[in-house]
Amino acid sequence: MKAEIISVGTELLLGHTVNTDATHVARELSALGMDLLQVHTVGDNPQRLEKALREALERAEVVITTGGLGPTEDDLTKETVALVAEAPLEEHADSMARLREYFGTRPMSANQAKQAMLPRGSVAFPNLVGTAPGCATPAGEGRWVLMLPGPPSELLPMLHDSAVPFLRSMSGSVISSFMVKTFGIGEGVAALRIAGLTGSANPTAATYAGDAEMFVRVTAKEQDAAAAEALAAPMVAEVRKLLGHFVYGVNVAGLETVVVQDLARQGKTLATAESCTGGLLAKRITDQPGASDVFGYGMVTYANEAKERLLGVPHDMLCAHGAVSPEVARAMAQGARKYSGADYGIGITGVAGPGGGTPQKPVGLVYIALSDAEHVWLRVMRPQGRYLGREWTRRLASSHALDMLRRRLADLPVEDQWSLDQA
Amino acid sequence: MKAEIISVGTELLLGHTVNTDATHVARELSALGMDLLQVHTVGDNPQRLEKALREALERAEVVITTGGLGPTEDDLTKETVALVAEAPLEEHADSMARLREYFGTRPMSANQAKQAMLPRGSVAFPNLVGTAPGCATPAGEGRWVLMLPGPPSELLPMLHDSAVPFLRSMSGSVISSFMVKTFGIGEGVAALRIAGLTGSANPTAATYAGDAEMFVRVTAKEQDAAAAEALAAPMVAEVRKLLGHFVYGVNVAGLETVVVQDLARQGKTLATAESCTGGLLAKRITDQPGASDVFGYGMVTYANEAKERLLGVPHDMLCAHGAVSPEVARAMAQGARKYSGADYGIGITGVAGPGGGTPQKPVGLVYIALSDAEHVWLRVMRPQGRYLGREWTRRLASSHALDMLRRRLADLPVEDQWSLDQA
Repeated sequence: MKAEIISVGTELLLGHTVNTDATHVARELSALGMDLLQVHTVGDNPQRLEKALREALERAEVVITTGGLGPTEDDLTKETVALVAEAPLEEHADSMARLREYFGTRPMSANQAKQAMLPRGSVAFPNLVGTAPGCATPAGEGRWVLMLPGPPSELLPMLHDSAVPFLRSMSGSVISSFMVKTFGIGEGVAALRIAGLTGSANPTAATYAGDAEMFVRVTAKEQDAAAAEALAAPMVAEVRKLLGHFVYGVNVAGLETVVVQDLARQGKTLATAESCTGGLLAKRITDQPGASDVFGYGMVTYANEAKERLLGVPHDMLCAHGAVSPEVARAMAQGARKYSGADYGIGITGVAGPGGGTPQKPVGLVYIALSDAEHVWLRVMRPQGRYLGREWTRRLASSHALDMLRRRLADLPVEDQWSLDQA
Repeated sequence: MKAEIISVGTELLLGHTVNTDATHVARELSALGMDLLQVHTVGDNPQRLEKALREALERAEVVITTGGLGPTEDDLTKETVALVAEAPLEEHADSMARLREYFGTRPMSANQAKQAMLPRGSVAFPNLVGTAPGCATPAGEGRWVLMLPGPPSELLPMLHDSAVPFLRSMSGSVISSFMVKTFGIGEGVAALRIAGLTGSANPTAATYAGDAEMFVRVTAKEQDAAAAEALAAPMVAEVRKLLGHFVYGVNVAGLETVVVQDLARQGKTLATAESCTGGLLAKRITDQPGASDVFGYGMVTYANEAKERLLGVPHDMLCAHGAVSPEVARAMAQGARKYSGADYGIGITGVAGPGGGTPQKPVGLVYIALSDAEHVWLRVMRPQGRYLGREWTRRLASSHALDMLRRRLADLPVEDQWSLDQA
């Protein structure tokens, strides 16, 4: 079954908002085994939306719109769908009741009230977060337009609670997709290693470059989920074998997920001491529900004084080597571990830029240390080629820290094995 | 001048990757005064890409593709553009030399080498980060296809260094766009307040709902930047007046930008103590280059023991009230300030979920405290309607903390003024 997405909003065309809505919807369509042909993004422009709708309905059985359902004057998606589907807008009693309940004793304006209007014959999707309901509108010949709101906090629950169940009843075959995630190997090298697999039609294998990570997606299409998974499994195993210990997980959210799980499984704990990453590592760890079982202490020691007082980094060491040095990274990792009593300590210190670089310690130079009771391991990020920005540098440094701990917990080599040259 | 974007990549249609490339390109087109008609996303499917290219070239003078330039077999953008533009692929000498330099003594495979092939007559855009160059390819009748790589770390420098200068020479009028950013006011309420402005054709005003924030965009179109800015300025001032102290800035990245700037201007410092936000607040503050002038200490006290030892929260208080309580939030804020000697301390404690809630302390309950030498201010986030997830809850809690400090630094009321009911 074929689907298309039309995202509506001038803010998307001006680059003010990233279109995460399309990604969320695409992921669900894929899980349902529906074939997403394309995504269109148009502005708050009813003529262009109308044209996109008519064209999409020629190609696809299901067209999903995101955005343009709100109370403002340029929210015109429902009016346009009503026109294309030849279904006049009518007040939807349940939606109006819900809207009245939402406003309570506060006055409701006319533009608020228009949100309860839906094209005739629509199946309403209640909005449990905001004010604008969504709906599925029949558009002739067994085709449907599904309208979802733009703000992700409203779209996500409606997508999962209303739109996906609606679509499930329409769908046929099922796609099973496995993302093999790696850290430390380049896309070109990885593509060569798995070259023997990429010609296969079902299952398929393809490489994707993320920022400083590389993924291989294995996808199989079958009539039900179990058959699709069984078809994909041998290829997933082969990819894992070919990419070896660069693989940190399959269908996991990120390195932090694996590290928190592995720590919990082994009954170990971690404490962090961050300078240039400024809390990003602690944030990534505590993104995981249940992180409190393995993580009790995080220190963001941005000032040298904080490194001395919180972590016990010797004043003389800071004077002799400077805050950005292998010695201080090691002392931070050990200090965090000792102060907290955790099994592992991580220390990160570097120059995230864009300012603060010197010839000896350029922007992009970061030291990352991992310590346990016996050892301290160290990695060095050196500026390579062009500076990719503060965010990128901080992200990569925190990923190195997580990768070091992942490898330690799996008894793999920890230092320098991430280098492309040694792949 | 009209433009369209075509993003290429099956990973986008499967929802594995968010299309930030389109956002980056859209933002630059807007700044150049170019009119972006729509964004298409297609898979690694040469037939569908060819159709999208031909249609886009009928509507727009400039079509920008993102993705599909890499070394793998499903990277087919250049081949397809070459077909549509009727310009055969030829080896581009400079790109091949750069590729050889990149690989050094390592072997270069045939699929790596094909990256140096460009359609005849193209203007090459060097890739200073990765291996695949981009280019601008003439497509007849003064039309151009610009090809940019998919990974954001490669796309961004090429966009700024090569594509934007190329496009600037083609453009006419200039759009000036101002984003008035607010925290604590709903879109519906804000839309009513500025209803008198939204009918204007040039400049225009429109509201956008972010996650827990609301923005008003004022846009003016003129022949040069100075004239466009002058046309927009009175409306920006009017929006600021109508939305009052909910406005935290215009064309600023976020609350954290304003807070770090205001602290620096006033020569004040901040220390943070985070429980449920787990470093996110420190991370947002240190996202700002130069944060070290105002921020020296951040404590992620996930464990109760850490709250006692690092922040001096009394053991008896933790036993009597629990970690998630107004008392502990206040004590954390004061503890962070006192330990570090900073002017302001922030304490955040709550239940981010999805687990860990109780009837007395449900998921979504968060206490946020701000302290200076004389006062402690407190806000409470209570679960309202549906739980929007761990990330959303943590993000909103850190935003409240920043908003409290922003208001304190501007001598505005700090507590509870964010409530919609009091707007």
